[in-house]
This record gives sequence, C-alpha cells and structure tokens, in this order.
Amino acid sequence: MQKLDVAILGATGAVGQRFIQLLEGHPWFQVSEVIGSSRSAGKTYGEAARWVLDDNPPARVAALTVKALDADFCSPLVFSALPKEAAKTRELELAAAGHVVCTNASANRMLPDVPLMLPEVNADHIDLINVQRQRRGWNGGALIANSNCTVMPVVMALKPLLKYGIRRLHLVSEQAVSGAGYPGVSSMDMIDNILPYVPGDEDKMQTESLKMLGRFTGEGIDELQTVVSATCTRVPVLDGHLVNISVELADQPELSSIIEDWETYQAPAPVLDLPSAPAYPLQYLYQIDRPQPRRDRQAGKGMMTSIGRLRECPVLGYKFAALSHNTVRGAAGCSILNAELMAVAGCIEGFRVAEYALAS
Amino acid sequence: MQKLDVAILGATGAVGQRFIQLLEGHPWFQVSEVIGSSRSAGKTYGEAARWVLDDNPPARVAALTVKALDADFCSPLVFSALPKEAAKTRELELAAAGHVVCTNASANRMLPDVPLMLPEVNADHIDLINVQRQRRGWNGGALIANSNCTVMPVVMALKPLLKYGIRRLHLVSEQAVSGAGYPGVSSMDMIDNILPYVPGDEDKMQTESLKMLGRFTGEGIDELQTVVSATCTRVPVLDGHLVNISVELADQPELSSIIEDWETYQAPAPVLDLPSAPAYPLQYLYQIDRPQPRRDRQAGKGMMTSIGRLRECPVLGYKFAALSHNTVRGAAGCSILNAELMAVAGCIEGFRVAEYALAS
Amino acid sequence: MQKLDVAILGATGAVGQRFIQLLEGHPWFQVSEVIGSSRSAGKTYGEAARWVLDDNPPARVAALTVKALDADFCSPLVFSALPKEAAKTRELELAAAGHVVCTNASANRMLPDVPLMLPEVNADHIDLINVQRQRRGWNGGALIANSNCTVMPVVMALKPLLKYGIRRLHLVSEQAVSGAGYPGVSSMDMIDNILPYVPGDEDKMQTESLKMLGRFTGEGIDELQTVVSATCTRVPVLDGHLVNISVELADQPELSSIIEDWETYQAPAPVLDLPSAPAYPLQYLYQIDRPQPRRDRQAGKGMMTSIGRLRECPVLGYKFAALSHNTVRGAAGCSILNAELMAVAGCIEGFRVAEYALAS
Amino acid sequence: MQKLDVAILGATGAVGQRFIQLLEGHPWFQVSEVIGSSRSAGKTYGEAARWVLDDNPPARVAALTVKALDADFCSPLVFSALPKEAAKTRELELAAAGHVVCTNASANRMLPDVPLMLPEVNADHIDLINVQRQRRGWNGGALIANSNCTVMPVVMALKPLLKYGIRRLHLVSEQAVSGAGYPGVSSMDMIDNILPYVPGDEDKMQTESLKMLGRFTGEGIDELQTVVSATCTRVPVLDGHLVNISVELADQPELSSIIEDWETYQAPAPVLDLPSAPAYPLQYLYQIDRPQPRRDRQAGKGMMTSIGRLRECPVLGYKFAALSHNTVRGAAGCSILNAELMAVAGCIEGFRVAEYALAS
Repeated sequence: MQKLDVAILGATGAVGQRFIQLLEGHPWFQVSEVIGSSRSAGKTYGEAARWVLDDNPPARVAALTVKALDADFCSPLVFSALPKEAAKTRELELAAAGHVVCTNASANRMLPDVPLMLPEVNADHIDLINVQRQRRGWNGGALIANSNCTVMPVVMALKPLLKYGIRRLHLVSEQAVSGAGYPGVSSMDMIDNILPYVPGDEDKMQTESLKMLGRFTGEGIDELQTVVSATCTRVPVLDGHLVNISVELADQPELSSIIEDWETYQAPAPVLDLPSAPAYPLQYLYQIDRPQPRRDRQAGKGMMTSIGRLRECPVLGYKFAALSHNTVRGAAGCSILNAELMAVAGCIEGFRVAEYALAS
Repeated sequence: MQKLDVAILGATGAVGQRFIQLLEGHPWFQVSEVIGSSRSAGKTYGEAARWVLDDNPPARVAALTVKALDADFCSPLVFSALPKEAAKTRELELAAAGHVVCTNASANRMLPDVPLMLPEVNADHIDLINVQRQRRGWNGGALIANSNCTVMPVVMALKPLLKYGIRRLHLVSEQAVSGAGYPGVSSMDMIDNILPYVPGDEDKMQTESLKMLGRFTGEGIDELQTVVSATCTRVPVLDGHLVNISVELADQPELSSIIEDWETYQAPAPVLDLPSAPAYPLQYLYQIDRPQPRRDRQAGKGMMTSIGRLRECPVLGYKFAALSHNTVRGAAGCSILNAELMAVAGCIEGFRVAEYALAS
Repeated sequence: MQKLDVAILGATGAVGQRFIQLLEGHPWFQVSEVIGSSRSAGKTYGEAARWVLDDNPPARVAALTVKALDADFCSPLVFSALPKEAAKTRELELAAAGHVVCTNASANRMLPDVPLMLPEVNADHIDLINVQRQRRGWNGGALIANSNCTVMPVVMALKPLLKYGIRRLHLVSEQAVSGAGYPGVSSMDMIDNILPYVPGDEDKMQTESLKMLGRFTGEGIDELQTVVSATCTRVPVLDGHLVNISVELADQPELSSIIEDWETYQAPAPVLDLPSAPAYPLQYLYQIDRPQPRRDRQAGKGMMTSIGRLRECPVLGYKFAALSHNTVRGAAGCSILNAELMAVAGCIEGFRVAEYALAS
Repeated sequence: MQKLDVAILGATGAVGQRFIQLLEGHPWFQVSEVIGSSRSAGKTYGEAARWVLDDNPPARVAALTVKALDADFCSPLVFSALPKEAAKTRELELAAAGHVVCTNASANRMLPDVPLMLPEVNADHIDLINVQRQRRGWNGGALIANSNCTVMPVVMALKPLLKYGIRRLHLVSEQAVSGAGYPGVSSMDMIDNILPYVPGDEDKMQTESLKMLGRFTGEGIDELQTVVSATCTRVPVLDGHLVNISVELADQPELSSIIEDWETYQAPAPVLDLPSAPAYPLQYLYQIDRPQPRRDRQAGKGMMTSIGRLRECPVLGYKFAALSHNTVRGAAGCSILNAELMAVAGCIEGFRVAEYALAS
C-alpha cells in the first residue's frame, strides 16, 4: 500500500513535533511536507526546529525543507498545529482548495459545521462533513477539529455515563506545562509554584465538552444540555492533564456499575480497529493514589484515559479523577485518529484503506 | 517582662522546627525545653535535629538538651507537634498535670470539649476551656487545638461569608509537600508528577471546617450545618496550600460585596492586637493568576490568607481560590496565636500580659 | 528454547522493580522467584510492592508470592538488588550454593576475585570467574558485580580514550534521585534545591572506575593507574546521571578524533550481539546543550551513554559531559547484560545459548 | 538626610525588580525614576511590570510612570539592568552626561577603565574611576560594573586564598533559572531535567574572575595570572548559584587554616560599614551536605557567600563548594553596594554621606 502524503502546519512547535513523532512509522500516512514560520522557511527541519521532545527528530523529517505557510503544497492530508490567529483563515482556505485538514487549533472548533471529534466518543459526527461540504461548496476538502487537551479526559470519562443523564458538572484541572507549548510557561513560574489560572481553558471546558457530547441531527450538532463549571490550574508537570470531576446524574447507579461501564467501554467499529486506537480507551485504576500524570500518561501509548478515585460526592453525587496525555491523546494523537477515521470512511479522495461502514 | 517558658513536643520534626523558628524573638514566650524521640533524647538539639528549614536553628535552642517524651518538664506552656498516636494520651496527661497544651496534632481535635481554634474566626470558642476544665477536673491545665493545615484557608475565607448562609461547599486542594513532614513525600513521587490523594485530609476538610465555623452554646460547639465535598491533591510545592473553593450561598451578594467583606475583615479584639496576628487576616489579589503558593505564602509573615479569582460558578454560584502558608498559618503559627489568646484571656496561670477583655 | 528461571533479590525496591520491568519479555530469562523483606514475604508481589515505575508491574509477576531472603529458592540465576548490609554475606552464600549471582549491590564489588563488569568495556574480566571458583571452591556458582550507577557513564566514555593514556581525571556529577531508591531523597530536599553531596558515591567514583578500566592478569585485576577526583551532587531529576568530565591525556589527539573514537566504538563479540546490548554503546550529540537527562536517558532503550560538549579544558586538556540512565544502564540493565554474557560464555550450568567464543 | 534620587534602567525585568525590592527602605537612596522599553513607557510601573518576585511591587514605585530609555531623566545615580545590546552605548552616554551609572549589564564590564567591583574584594579598584574620568573627559559621571552572577561566589571565596598563590582553577557551576531573567528558561527544559550549558557564562567565568582579583596599578588593572576552566550548567532552582571549585595553590595550607581565613575575612573599611554589607561576607558550613541553594541563599539577607565541603582534591589539591544568591549578591545587591561605596568615597557629586577614607 502506497502511504498518503501529509503536511504538518506549525511543524516546528511543540505540538507539530508531536505530530512528527507519532507519525513516524505510521502504517497509512507519511510526513512529506513541513510548514513553519517565515523565519524557518527554507531551512531544513533539523536546523529550523528546536526539538523539545525526547531524543531527536526522525532523520527523514529532519532533512525536509521547511515551507512557508502561504506556499503551495500538495499533500492531500494536512495536520494543523498552527497558533489560533494563523489557523483561522488558512485552514478554511486549505479545505476549500481540496485538502482534508485535521486541526488541533482552537480557532474553528466551534463553527457549527466543523465536527469536533473524538472518535471513541462521537464518530458519527463525521457525517457533519457532508453538511460542511454542501454548505461551503467544498469539493474533496474538509475541516475536522479535535478539542482542547483538557476537555479530552472529561469527555472520554463521561461518554459511558451519558445514559444516566448528566445534569451538572464541576471540573478542576491540574494541567501540564506542555499544554502551553514551547517555550510556553516560564520556569520562574513553575519552580516551587502552581498557577491558579490557565488563559482560555475554562471557557473551552464549558463549551467544547457540550458540543462533543451532543447529538448529530442530520443538520448539525445538538449540544448536551448540562451546566458546567470549570477551574483550570497549571502544575509543574511535563505531560498529562488531570481533572478532578464531580458530576450530578439523573439516575443513581452503583459505583461498581460505573466502573464496569468504564472498563468495558469500547469504541464503535470501525474506530476500534484504527491504527492509533487503543483496544480500550479507558482504564480504571484501583490504587487510591492514581491516576498520576507521570505514571499513567503513557497508558495505551498515550491514547488511553486513566480514571481513579471514584467515590460519592456529598455535593453532586459522584466524583473521580481522570487523566490523559495532553499532547498525544489531547492533541496530535487525536488529530491522527480523526484522520484515520476520515480515511476509512472514504472521506479522503483517492485514498481508501478498506471497506468499512461507519457504525453511526 | 519575664518571658514564659515553653516546651516543644516533637521538636525535631518539620513542624517542631517551625515552632522554634517562629518563637525566636517572640515578645512573650521563649523555648526552654525541646522534647524528642528516645533516639534524640540526651543529645543537644543541634545534634539531634536535621534542620530542614532555611539556614540553621537558632544557636540558643541548638544548645538545649533534648528530653524524652516521658520526662518531667516544667514549662507551663507546651506546644505539641507530636505524631497522632503519640499525641493521643500524652497531651491529655500533660493538660491534666497543669500544662496549657496548644497542639497541632490531629488526635484530639474533634473531642467535644477541645476548642478547635483559629482566633480570627472563632476566638469565643476559648470559653470551651471552662467546660473542659470543669468536666475533666483539670486545674490550670488545658488542651486547645488548631485545625488541619488545608482547612485553615477555607475557614478563614468563609468566615466573612457566614452571614450570607453557606449551603454547600466544594473544595479541591493543591497541597504543598511540607504538609506531610520530613522526609514525608518522596522526591520520586513529586518530580514531573502530582498525587491525586492526600491520606486523611479529605475527612478533616469535611469535619473540622464545620466545627470551627460552629457556634459555642455555653456547653459545647453547635457545628455549622453545611454539606462539604473535599478532594485533596499533592503538588510539587514546598510550602503553601491552595484550595479551589466553590460555594452555594443562601443569599446572592454581588461579587464586589464579597471582596469588600474580605478586604475589611478584621479579627475581634483582643485578637487583633496579638503579637502574631496580622493587621488584616485576608487579602484579595486582583491579578487573574493569583494567589500563587510561592509568591503569596509569605503575606503577613505567613499569617495572612490570600484570595483571588472570585467569579460566578455555574454550578454552585460562587467560586474562588484561597491560599495560606501551611506550616505557619496552618500549623505552628496558628498554635502560637492560640497560645497568645490564652495568655491575654488569663487562661495561663501566673502569666498575665495585659488587661484585655474577650470580645466574645 | 526453554527460558532460564531467575530470582530477584530485593524485588520490591526501586532497582528490583527495574529488573522486573526490563526482564519482561526477555528472550532467555524469566522472573520466577521474587525475594523481599520478611514484611513482604507471603504476600503476592502485587500486594507487597509499592510500584514506583510507570504503569503497573507485569501481571504474571504481580501474582508471584514473595519469598523471604532466607528461604530456599531454586532459580539458577539470581539478580541482587539488596541493600548493602543484606547483600554482604547472602550473595556469597548463594554463589557457594551454586547460583550465578549478578549483583547491583556495592557490598562485594571490590573483592579482588569478583569481576566488576561492564561488558562493552571489560568483557574479558569474566575470566576472573575461573579464579573465583577455584579459590573459593565453588561449583557452578559465581558472583559478578556491576558498578555504581555514576561510574558507568564515566567508564563507558573513557574506554575508547584508554589508548591515549589517561593521566588525571576530574569528575563532577549531577545525579538523579532514583539513584537513592524509594522513598530515598525527600521532596523537601529537592524542590527548588540541589544537594552538593551524595553519601558514598565520591569514593566509588575514585575506586570502581580504576578497577573497571584495569587489566585482567590471569590472576586478578591490575587497576588503571590514574588520579581521580570526584564530586557528586544530587539534582531534581528522576532518572539519568550526568557527569562533567575533565581529563588529562598523555597524547594530544584532535577533538574530532575523539568524537570519531566514540562514534565508532563497538563492543567486542559476543557482547555486540547480546539481547540487551545496544548496537553502539556511545553516541555523540552535537547540539551545544546536550546531553540532557530527560531527553537523552532513553537512548538505546536506556542502554546507551550520550556524550556532548567536548572541548578544550584550560586546566586538564579535554572536557565533556556524559550521561546514562542510572537504573537501566547504571544498574539493572547492566546486571542483565552481565548475565547474558555469562550465559553465552557457558558460565551458567545447564544453560547454553549458542556457540560463542569470548573475544578477550 | 535627604535621600538621593535613583533611576532604574530595565526596571520591569527580573533584575530591575530586584533593584526595586532591595532599594525599598534603603537609608540613602530612593527609586524616583523607572525606565523601561518603549512598550512600557507611559504606563504606571504597576501596569507595565509583570512582577515575578514574591508579593507585589512597593506601592510607591508601582505608581511611578515608566519612562522610555531615550527620555531625559534627572537622577544623579542610575542602576542599569539593561539587556547587553541596549546597555552598550546608553550607559556610556549617561555617564558622559554626568550620571553615576552602576551597571549589572555585561556589555561594558571588560573595558579597561571600567572597574569591575565587588567591594569586599577589590574596593581599591574604585580609583580606576579617576582614570576613567580623566581619559574620557567625564565630569561627575562614572561607569562602574559588577560581575556576572556566577563569578561572584568564586571570587568571594578565593579572595582570602590569594595569599597562597592561586595557580589553577577548575569550576563547575549549577545555576538557578533566575540568572536567565524572565521568562528566561522554559519550564519544558527544567522539569525533570538539567541543561549542561549556559550561553556565555563560561567565558565570563574565565575572564571576569581574573580582572576582579587583579591589582590596580594606578593606570589600570593587572589581571591575576591564573589558568581557569569553567563549565556552567543550569538546574531547576529558582535562586542561588552553586559552584564546585577545585583549586591548585602554590602553598599547601592546612584545611583548617583555609576555613579560618574564610571565617575571619572582613571587608576593609569603609566597606564593612556600608548599609548593604554583611558583617562577614563569607560563612563556612560544617554540615557535609551544605551549602544548598534554597537553604543558604538568604544568608546575610542574600549578601553572604556560603562555603562548604572543603577537602583535598586528588587532582588539584583543594576542592569545595561556594554559593551565593545570584540576583541579590550576584546582581542588584552588588550594584547597590558598589553605589554605596561610590557615595562614601565622595564620587557622587553633591551627595556625601560621611567622612570616610578609602582603605586602598
């Protein structure tokens, strides 16, 4: 099988690097174009990128020449790790030009015809692509987003609880520094310290989660009707966002039933079989002091969400902690999974991996 | 004025050291006896204590010989930084023998006739000492406790809001490692990591806060009737516990009124004038990313509580963050303030600082 | 091929855990017995061990019952992660009883007839086993040690430079906390701090390095005659010891020649082909700010040593930095490599992997 | 006594903030003008500065309006915390215009007629001001520099050893992040990591130390003739640079003599009596694991240098560790001390604190 060429927008940044790292050895996709700022354009990727992940960039990618954002590029599939402002119009232009754009940027996430997708949770939102293409007159192109990295573990943990009726949700996050990119948070703010505020994230927690857990109506997304209160804090952790979740349910399930719901939850076909999908997207940890960012963020190669400490909440009924890797599951890894779903759904022209049918 | 001799129980531990540090230069009290484990007894304090605070122990205290816990000692005033098990009976024995014991240990905090005191909040609970002495037949001795270090910023911040009716309370803490003593939390658990659980603290948050905010009836304490949900986590911070507080009030005050309540709150006389009392026990910080442990824990020499981020909570109505120094305000400093209140209230026999009247 | 049963002494500690983690899926060896303290004996490993590495212990090992140190056990191959005192006599008893003991403990390292082995550096020291067996009358048993974890990157980096004549050596280490085990270093010592002293390690740097770089004479080891000065410090890093090395050489090679020596260095056969041996044990990093513990410790699955910053030293001639993973390359991983070498050399009775000849 | 007005250049940066903090309550000087970038100019200091130190800026300074670097300002005394490029010409212009400029910038430190001063070490270098004024035709103005923050503890510790003849010097530093300013070092580089390189500092260690320990000839500075090798590394510590120092001396003093030299060392009059001078600039710590950055950086209000671990060095003869607070002793505090010396020496026109005579 001939691999599909992909381009990475914002390739030199922290999330761009994670895209490159995760795509190394991918069975369907290969990084063929790297796009950076005008300062980087013309250099090799190895020269242009200050690699902040472990080890060094893959040699093949390090040798690619960085292109400018306004250059022409030919990869049918584009992953965007652009800053918000840069993403806003460029992503739409590229989709209009026929590229399938899977974006991690927040700029276009809440547009009504852009699916905000986490395949294990709302794979059926992919059908919003049809609405999008029709409404915008796009031919082959598409724009599909993944959510904010802190929203991810929340939505993942709540999906199996939807059947109990989610009434109210209270979230307090403890977020890793990689969520702010590189250089991002100054070490002078993170030694012997935490920050009680993360710019922008509380709003995203309160809006994106409802869109993701919403229902596709054929026309658009009917958001979940739930009251959400979010507090976002920053802690001296490299990777892995932990969220302390309290939830009020309409029903009163046993704690053991909820744990069973999590442990048995599986993504619907064909998501289950996608190359980047973990066999089970959720794991419940029984030790009283888990999940922990450093010890649990790598579960399922960084694609699983770990849950622990489920117990009664005197105020809202139930409470627990959920954790996932913010730059894998919560960013680049999710975008890649979205692209894989697009591929099997036949939404990437001229590239068909198999004869799957969507389980929506 | 002749200073009052004081003994420190558990003097070599982290909180014991903080007692010694804070009492250096105290206008009324001087450390005359240091009590440690049988392993330390007989050595000088300088030899026995692995000093974990900044700098070195005061030279005068370093030269004292450490006594065993079962030794006789003669200081009328005793500060206890004992571990829970050791504290349980020994503190009561010492009070029975005529010592005024101000304890930071949790063992006897919730006994119905032991005041759990934070002078700025519930100075009138000191009258429970009369009940205690009468019931137990103690003559001159007394046992008075301060609360868990994480409860402290919560109770302090809520006191001025009591008038609005506190219905439900949701707490998520991010606690410093010094709360676990020395060596306490392993560095292998705190590098690039947080722990989503602190043994014992969630229960204390849910019980001690209600006793402290309760009403002295003449016979005992009528606890506040409020539903509390607490989650306690550990973060890589040396000193300073931050608590994310959401609260439901019976009334609906403006945010600005609440801030004004905090900024104008003062302890009742005579607490206001005690040597260790800050002029204002609370400060509100208007920067969106404050309070922060490292930058704000020293406010008021570690005795103030810093509050920030007051805003609407979609779930409970109001939310904000409160921070105080856990081993000063939340431990040794509060015990010392309690002792100062005992002194001005004439509850330490043979030692009368002034002609104050309690404002209860 | 039937795998060889191995026992882990000190299995519940931090290095014991690393043995278990690294042996999971090993092609020749399988963990069949786990030995712990009397407190752990009788419990399953899953209950007894507070797992401090990422994720959880392998399920198969978690189900094993922990045996006491004085129990009989039957595995021919024993890995020892015992504390020094416990190791001293027990390791010798076990070797005398016919077990091949590969130890990470420091207790017996400097015994004249115990090889202190790092296969890429001194594989020929394995012949000291014959001297050992003959002198002690052991039949089938043997004791073989690996060095202190900070010595490892030094010896590895110096091996290719031996030909230039190493006259004087000045070492300043910056060591990770996992080197002290769990709980080991208190978080109160490691937040916003470093420790300028690591108990015991400076001596080991100054003695073990000379034995390892010494020459096997047929009777014993002729130590390298070099003056060594070592300073060991502790830094807030989880894994990965970095050593700042200045060296005076008898010859004056070009910097580029030294780099080439490192880059082309390969272990002699059969070490090269052992399952845990990296293809190249050394890598030179050209970026000016490398090696870094977090980014480079995993090179070669934690078995490579990374070197960087080679430049002239105005005082001693040459200086550079070397780093390796202290609990993989510097402890459990090296012990396993030693055992693999014993296996191919036919030194483990009844277990022969192949028809290798030693390249000594 | 009327306080002298001072201006702070680069007032909003990390070192600028430290100047403001240390000058609060200074007996001779008061901050009257704050100079920032064009982006800050026109705002109040409170608005313009993102305060990175503890607590908040002093209220009086927070209310000052920030001036641009090219504005006219009238303070006779100017402290410069400018970046290197900005400092280069502006500092000379200001001195030419009659201001006494005490700079922390590196730009002009090594000019032959600029004293690189640490009053406890080389107060007599102040006479170079006469040479400077004469050569440049300056009338009242002057430029005086303090050294790089890592050089400071080295020079301070070596001064009392000059009499033994310093032949060779080998330095390995472990430096705090505040040395790089704010935001400076990314938290992504400092969590679970160290950096083996600090841009520019190794050169400064090898040159500035020799100028500072040099002899004023009447015409200029005769640098110390010593071979220096420096390695600079960055560690996750907020404040406090520790340097591992090995030194070869011409004489062979006893270790105890050296300790006595340090413990008895006092600055010459009038330095001894300057408001910011500690009574003793050096302290020797006998505990084997000291000095430590967090526990010892505040010694003497951050103005003392702490030394520990003196022992024999097999390679160079003697080795020890020295530590000082890099933004107090190593930056703003030293500049202020320099200005105090200028004041008592009568080098600030129209401002004379007392009738001192220099002890040169």
